[in-house]
Amino acid sequence: MRVVVAMDSFKGSLSAEQACEAVRTGVLAADSAAQVVLAPMADGGEGTVAAIVAARGGRTLLEPAVDAIGRETMAAWGLLPGGTAVLEAAATLGLADQHADSALPARASSAGLGGQLEQVRASGARRVLVGLGGSACTDGGTGMLLALGARLWDASGAQILPRPGHNPLLRRPVRVELPAHLGIEVEVLSDVTSPLLGAHGAARMFGPQKGADPAQVELLEEAMTAWAQALAEAGHAVADLPGAGAAGGLGAALAALGACLVGGIERVAAEVDLPAALVGADLVITGEGRLDAQSALGKVPDGVARLARAAGVARVIALAGAVETGPERVEPFDAVLAIQPGPRPLAEAMRPEAAAADLARVTGQVVRLAR
Amino acid sequence: MRVVVAMDSFKGSLSAEQACEAVRTGVLAADSAAQVVLAPMADGGEGTVAAIVAARGGRTLLEPAVDAIGRETMAAWGLLPGGTAVLEAAATLGLADQHADSALPARASSAGLGGQLEQVRASGARRVLVGLGGSACTDGGTGMLLALGARLWDASGAQILPRPGHNPLLRRPVRVELPAHLGIEVEVLSDVTSPLLGAHGAARMFGPQKGADPAQVELLEEAMTAWAQALAEAGHAVADLPGAGAAGGLGAALAALGACLVGGIERVAAEVDLPAALVGADLVITGEGRLDAQSALGKVPDGVARLARAAGVARVIALAGAVETGPERVEPFDAVLAIQPGPRPLAEAMRPEAAAADLARVTGQVVRLAR
Repeated sequence: MRVVVAMDSFKGSLSAEQACEAVRTGVLAADSAAQVVLAPMADGGEGTVAAIVAARGGRTLLEPAVDAIGRETMAAWGLLPGGTAVLEAAATLGLADQHADSALPARASSAGLGGQLEQVRASGARRVLVGLGGSACTDGGTGMLLALGARLWDASGAQILPRPGHNPLLRRPVRVELPAHLGIEVEVLSDVTSPLLGAHGAARMFGPQKGADPAQVELLEEAMTAWAQALAEAGHAVADLPGAGAAGGLGAALAALGACLVGGIERVAAEVDLPAALVGADLVITGEGRLDAQSALGKVPDGVARLARAAGVARVIALAGAVETGPERVEPFDAVLAIQPGPRPLAEAMRPEAAAADLARVTGQVVRLAR
Repeated sequence: MRVVVAMDSFKGSLSAEQACEAVRTGVLAADSAAQVVLAPMADGGEGTVAAIVAARGGRTLLEPAVDAIGRETMAAWGLLPGGTAVLEAAATLGLADQHADSALPARASSAGLGGQLEQVRASGARRVLVGLGGSACTDGGTGMLLALGARLWDASGAQILPRPGHNPLLRRPVRVELPAHLGIEVEVLSDVTSPLLGAHGAARMFGPQKGADPAQVELLEEAMTAWAQALAEAGHAVADLPGAGAAGGLGAALAALGACLVGGIERVAAEVDLPAALVGADLVITGEGRLDAQSALGKVPDGVARLARAAGVARVIALAGAVETGPERVEPFDAVLAIQPGPRPLAEAMRPEAAAADLARVTGQVVRLAR
């Protein structure tokens, strides 16, 4: 039996690589002769650098950075053999590192990602993959652009200068001069296909989970609309690109710098050689920390399953720490199962050793059924 | 696909019948054309009356009784078409109704079961199945025998008279005269094969879970040894029978009255027509509230699985509220899975609606794999 294991991370508990290892343990317990291929996955958000570096054998650099509210921190990025760098916005701008209250929208900026791009450029890398997703900011990428040398002005003609811990978008830039060409090829991996503006855009769709109250959401939307206009007037009509609204509008700003916006799951899958691994597989096991049937679209397990179906794999199982499904089939999976061994508190379930043992256990039990 | 569903109850949450219904919902969600046969199971302990009455279409009578410590209560028993009655010791003598502290061993008696046997006899039933298991008493059946008219004496020659809320065994009977023949055929369904005495007997094996401290356990064992001698001297050498030590020694006392001691699971399986249902089944689903790989032996899921294997069924799945297994195969099952959808407290998991939905969900997901 040939089994491909393509897990996302179990956030706060297991990396994608650890999750894959646990599943392999379970597969081999059920069938010691199974051929198991691991492809740790990510969607462009948190875990993207780790997944790609694990698959490609690159190295991880830990360098000084600033977080979403301007605090000094250390952030990792990856350098792959051949000179491609991998960044993820979550490493510097991570929402998980912030209190998502109503003080955050006015403080959070993407300046930290600009600093990381400078580091990548200084390293001599000629190409960089930038994973979006999981960011705390809604600044249309203005913070990053300022950090990279862009110039912004408000309606009164005053120049907007970088200020740590302030969201430059709320100073309402209406004119922009982008820096000269970055000198590096940028591909942006987005976990969402949101445009910059509107109901599915950066402010209205994602602002609330980043602490914005309804009034703040509308303030951000207004400023973002003017910012989109400024970018368009500078020759960058990027607001409607799928992914422009990712990471608080970083997608739009990176596109304005000449980056390609691509689907995070498909791009990570290509980096970890998932499509090739799927050829001839009998069973694919995927999963993540939490799997909600309604929001499965666009998540790693869904993307892996669709790639698996396209490759003709007969069986695809999704495992998660928690599921929200019924008994009916959850397309495109054959089975969706939670890994808990019984009633117990979240903190206990999230202990890495517990989660790894649970994944191995359920894998072993279901692989015997799926053979 | 032909699926046989033979669940034990999920104690404190779902009856065996409710658990079977939930699993049926899940099977049909996975395969609306499946032929599903329900065989709610029990092992002779709590739930035995309900399982057999559900399967055989009898009626349940609720009549006055006394509990293990002599309190008045109402207890159910079943009357099947054809005049066979079904009792379970847990209905009157249930440990679940008591505080299992060190005050209990001296108070708990089996008198209540004697009262129920009188009711059965008065009903005109000619045959009775008595399920043991889950009882609070360790009295060698002395309380029941006194209630049925037996006479007991202590070493000083004083007669031991019934006293509610007192364990007659601790008055150390050394001589017994059993009542005349009961006038009713008795089959005893035991969930354990324990003898009356010794390390695996009524006092040493089961005393501690009924509140006995180490000193009390040895006191009970000494008195039980003298009581076994008294029964033997009266012509009833029953102490070594498998099941004699069930329900605190009720097995021995019922055997002395002429009852047959039989395996609870096999006997209940026969009553609910499980062996016939298993012929030609593609899949069997069994389970119970808690499934520990080490203690699975003698439990309903294990018994159902062995019957299923004997009938040539290819696949047997066990589902439980909580499991204690690893990824390896848990003989004799193909898969053992817990039904929790994620981390959560015990009380929430045990809500009947939640447990039923969980059972249906996991069933639906795994049946698609097992087809």
